[in-house]
Amino acid sequence: MSVTTGLIGVDWGTSNLRAMRIAEGGRVLDSRSDPRGAGGLASDQFHNVLQDVAGDWLSEGLPVLISGMAGARGRWREMAYLPCPAGVADLAGAVASPDDAPLVRLVPGVAALESERLQDVMRGEETQVFGLDLQDDAVVVGPGTHSKWIRTAQGRITDFRTFMTGELFAAIRKGTILGADMGDPGVDDDAFASGVERALHDPAVTANLFSVRVEGLAGRLSSTSAADYLSGLLIGAEVAAQIDARGRPILLIGAEPLCRRYAAALAQADFHAVGIADGAAATALGLWRIHEAVSR
Amino acid sequence: MSVTTGLIGVDWGTSNLRAMRIAEGGRVLDSRSDPRGAGGLASDQFHNVLQDVAGDWLSEGLPVLISGMAGARGRWREMAYLPCPAGVADLAGAVASPDDAPLVRLVPGVAALESERLQDVMRGEETQVFGLDLQDDAVVVGPGTHSKWIRTAQGRITDFRTFMTGELFAAIRKGTILGADMGDPGVDDDAFASGVERALHDPAVTANLFSVRVEGLAGRLSSTSAADYLSGLLIGAEVAAQIDARGRPILLIGAEPLCRRYAAALAQADFHAVGIADGAAATALGLWRIHEAVSR
Repeated sequence: MSVTTGLIGVDWGTSNLRAMRIAEGGRVLDSRSDPRGAGGLASDQFHNVLQDVAGDWLSEGLPVLISGMAGARGRWREMAYLPCPAGVADLAGAVASPDDAPLVRLVPGVAALESERLQDVMRGEETQVFGLDLQDDAVVVGPGTHSKWIRTAQGRITDFRTFMTGELFAAIRKGTILGADMGDPGVDDDAFASGVERALHDPAVTANLFSVRVEGLAGRLSSTSAADYLSGLLIGAEVAAQIDARGRPILLIGAEPLCRRYAAALAQADFHAVGIADGAAATALGLWRIHEAVSR
Repeated sequence: MSVTTGLIGVDWGTSNLRAMRIAEGGRVLDSRSDPRGAGGLASDQFHNVLQDVAGDWLSEGLPVLISGMAGARGRWREMAYLPCPAGVADLAGAVASPDDAPLVRLVPGVAALESERLQDVMRGEETQVFGLDLQDDAVVVGPGTHSKWIRTAQGRITDFRTFMTGELFAAIRKGTILGADMGDPGVDDDAFASGVERALHDPAVTANLFSVRVEGLAGRLSSTSAADYLSGLLIGAEVAAQIDARGRPILLIGAEPLCRRYAAALAQADFHAVGIADGAAATALGLWRIHEAVSR
């Protein structure tokens, strides 16, 4: 018995996209990537790109659901940010189609507010969160360029915070004296741990950065290990700022090597119950669940 | 009556140098700048550069005292870092001459230790500090690429900390999405104050950085004002990390516009007794005082 495709799902990021044929129930049957991210596209280019990438799938007349940056301002169609707390039903109730593609629906973003003031925003991560099987009060952590710590309760997103950890790491390596002679991270776990340790004990990020230089001068840090130490400082600062999540179940989602580094930092800060989830599968299942809620 | 030159002083930074004819007593009689900073010179080039810049002064056979990066590793002659607490007499007791210039003396650096481990270093700022007329327990703050907060007691440096504020500001503008469309700082005092406010209330620098983007999305921050807000976030983080210096007399030393921004941030954090000092005069007087102590 062949499996029926139920949905064409697209995770449209800033710098690339992934289109998927998703089975009824949410499993990925087939998947294609393309470098034409939403960041480089004007409103009237999205439909053509989608046809290019998945025209053969679209010809079957299946519904299409898209999460991520296609709904950002100035892109395919601007979608609002729904305020927290937000769940699958809230997102499903707010999907909308671009004028030039009635079969396509876009998932809105989610906003964190404080006293009704906008404090933080996400587009795409919310869909991934809803594809996870969350324990009660779980915190979903998506490490990367803009790391997100997403608090949940009873299956809804209640609050979240974005850290520019990955982008700052790259900018420091490229644009400061610390980057001179610095190698790639991933070679010295002890140096990473020592950066995390420092960040956990001292919240002053801009002062801790100078310690990369001092540790080198003191002969305690080689240029080979400096990237790991710097990575530990920045990831440690992120963990320190979220230390009140300790005790809650943590689910890491993203690139495996980076998730492993975060898991090590979390263990160092006495977080327990840390798991790593499959991001692609979560996105597909999240899109399917939103789609189901739309159709209901 | 003509004033007698007592000393040729040089403040030799990483990216430029300033040579001064200094009167007995420490006043600057004449001063020349040159872009040949220590960062780009090999050990055997310093003497020639000094001859180029101030050969006519040197021919008088006057003593020469140099502070700053000429004493860094791999430069004219490597000078040790003296441990805190360090005063004029300590520095004077450790000056030394390069092999190729017996009339020249270099001022050592100063190190902050914690449990005998090297924690921070400076070269040049110590000389400036000793050219100030310090109130008891004063904290000297030198804003810039690598800002320094220097604690003093009874005229000696007791501890200090370096913040990579200026360099990080530049790297973020150049290397992250926040820098796109960002203008120069110095145009919107309210945006600066709002960045300081946020940093004072929340120590999470990497999360606060993302607020530059969110404030823009929310329509609360224009691209014209974004640089001031970012500057406020980073300077505010520095002030927040030194909040225990509140109540002590603060002396800012460095470029006037930057000192004024720091003074505003300090006032916002309820620091009192904040003054701004003339950096060039302080360096000259500091060199003179160390020279006097050497000769004594």
